[in-house]
Amino acid sequence: MTTQPIFIPVILGTPRQGRMSEPVAKFVVEQVAKRDGVETELIDIRNIPLPTSDEGESIKDPKFSETMMRADALIIVVPEYNHGYPGLLKHLLDTNLKEYIHKAVGICGVSAGPFGGTRVIQSLLPVMRELGLVNIFWDGNFSNVHNIFDQSGKLLDEAYIRRLDKFLQELVWMAKVLRYGRENIASE
Amino acid sequence: MTTQPIFIPVILGTPRQGRMSEPVAKFVVEQVAKRDGVETELIDIRNIPLPTSDEGESIKDPKFSETMMRADALIIVVPEYNHGYPGLLKHLLDTNLKEYIHKAVGICGVSAGPFGGTRVIQSLLPVMRELGLVNIFWDGNFSNVHNIFDQSGKLLDEAYIRRLDKFLQELVWMAKVLRYGRENIASE
Amino acid sequence: MTTQPIFIPVILGTPRQGRMSEPVAKFVVEQVAKRDGVETELIDIRNIPLPTSDEGESIKDPKFSETMMRADALIIVVPEYNHGYPGLLKHLLDTNLKEYIHKAVGICGVSAGPFGGTRVIQSLLPVMRELGLVNIFWDGNFSNVHNIFDQSGKLLDEAYIRRLDKFLQELVWMAKVLRYGRENIASE
Amino acid sequence: MTTQPIFIPVILGTPRQGRMSEPVAKFVVEQVAKRDGVETELIDIRNIPLPTSDEGESIKDPKFSETMMRADALIIVVPEYNHGYPGLLKHLLDTNLKEYIHKAVGICGVSAGPFGGTRVIQSLLPVMRELGLVNIFWDGNFSNVHNIFDQSGKLLDEAYIRRLDKFLQELVWMAKVLRYGRENIASE
Repeated sequence: MTTQPIFIPVILGTPRQGRMSEPVAKFVVEQVAKRDGVETELIDIRNIPLPTSDEGESIKDPKFSETMMRADALIIVVPEYNHGYPGLLKHLLDTNLKEYIHKAVGICGVSAGPFGGTRVIQSLLPVMRELGLVNIFWDGNFSNVHNIFDQSGKLLDEAYIRRLDKFLQELVWMAKVLRYGRENIASE
Repeated sequence: MTTQPIFIPVILGTPRQGRMSEPVAKFVVEQVAKRDGVETELIDIRNIPLPTSDEGESIKDPKFSETMMRADALIIVVPEYNHGYPGLLKHLLDTNLKEYIHKAVGICGVSAGPFGGTRVIQSLLPVMRELGLVNIFWDGNFSNVHNIFDQSGKLLDEAYIRRLDKFLQELVWMAKVLRYGRENIASE
Repeated sequence: MTTQPIFIPVILGTPRQGRMSEPVAKFVVEQVAKRDGVETELIDIRNIPLPTSDEGESIKDPKFSETMMRADALIIVVPEYNHGYPGLLKHLLDTNLKEYIHKAVGICGVSAGPFGGTRVIQSLLPVMRELGLVNIFWDGNFSNVHNIFDQSGKLLDEAYIRRLDKFLQELVWMAKVLRYGRENIASE
Repeated sequence: MTTQPIFIPVILGTPRQGRMSEPVAKFVVEQVAKRDGVETELIDIRNIPLPTSDEGESIKDPKFSETMMRADALIIVVPEYNHGYPGLLKHLLDTNLKEYIHKAVGICGVSAGPFGGTRVIQSLLPVMRELGLVNIFWDGNFSNVHNIFDQSGKLLDEAYIRRLDKFLQELVWMAKVLRYGRENIASE
């Protein structure tokens, strides 16, 4: 297996004004960056300008595409809008395809209420799969998000460090396994 | 019950270049318009300019919102993108909420392949419900859509007229029932 | 509209030993029974003997079927097993079809953990729809169920009375609306 | 990596009388058995007696459990019942947990109609994930199944051999990759 670091970018999946997914995504990036042999970066959907006159691969942003190509795994930080995913996140995800194949993905759901984004996570699972990504069986669930971070984005509930650690452990494992597979196992 | 016509706008749910959902939506509008006591109009997502710097009700388009308010039922014509819904359709749907409550919705799934958009329909069901819409238990399934319409949008397979008739029959029934409920049944 | 009471049976959807869905179902029955003009009864899946050598309508239990036929709405009390529904609940539900058509359904999800059965609810929505039932857009969510009821089944958290009231208000409204529709609105 | 064959049992997921999933499962077993370095066997849900007085791991069948423990991947052949999974299949799957972890799964959906079991496949994805299985992004879709096999179970449409080959190629790849991971990659 190549020895270069495992690269796991974190997508902040909504441009919404006042988004509480922003402190979550920053916290996640911070926790990923702490791990040995893992690199990360924050991809803010606000910074990827996409046309709205078309959908799909023809409107691919070259920089986003290049980052996806380099990634070994993705983390998607995503609020739940009407029990589904934010439209602009899907608009972005649909612009790539081969870039994602046989890579791992973990989802962090963000809710103002008590259910930790479980419904948006469920709705993304079949989409992730069709994009060629491998869903891990551990999620990040950020319920009552206004109680987890203060207005300045400071973490108030330390229990999330431990919870995220288990999620990241599984994601890094799967990222390594799939990288080995991409590099060493032939398809017959 | 008020005697004004049942109003069922049809949303063409993708701006994609070369979209085959366009002939489907036009065909659906034509079939709805034929029914006694029913009015319709085509809402092309291309014609509703929405910002991409925010999501949700704060970016509501007044004209779309007014149309939803007047509607008794909706038809959504939607292609399947990576086993989910087009991002820009969700971006639009999320801009309204109270406008939809206790109204009927029917979905016409559009596929280039053989499965009639079943997966995008499944993925929209929980979203429709959370928006307050009532999913009917009949769908429009337009499989291998390039064989149903020619390049000019002409219908090639007459069987779709009969199939859509059953879908519309159920949708109009539910639209009438729910209008009666909204106007006459108190919530206790 | 006929003036006979609205009939809303409550299905206790698991036979599991030690099931915490039992106090939930009993509590729900109690709350439904309090409402004017509404009748209810508890249907315990343990009491409906079904063969396991076949599936579907051919193994219909006549008594269950007769109850479904009389129902105006259903409440399903259901724990979440591996993010899906209990097998024996589905085995039971699949034995009927025409009995359910154009009736309302509300789901009470039960979890030992914090997420209120949201995932089993999401997984049941398309099934309910295909059975002809109309999902309301309000759920019962019983999270950390061991904190809501004590060992003897006594309610510990009074907030659930108020929450369930809103759920039942919506369910009764939809049950009345659909009964009016079944009795008075012709399908054209 | 150990050199013993990859073991991929095929679960025939319904006991329904007259089941058309039986010729599908037999065909799948036959195709898997042809591959070098792969072993398989048919697990007929009819042959695994489970009590219906309880659900979950406490009613585990030792033989089924031992087979799952040995498996590197699973294939589930499953008809679509009311847009969901057969109850008895879920009843069986829920009896195991640790046996499935970090193994691959592929689903073959069976429909009497045209949509290839897409809806039952979608409904199983989150369940598979929660069981620790890794969904591959290729499915078997057996539409209009009465046209694919005759009454005696003979294959009528040779195109399915080629289609299943692609599905199996991906499943075997993922099974090998995950076996490597289980045996060689530590979780940190």
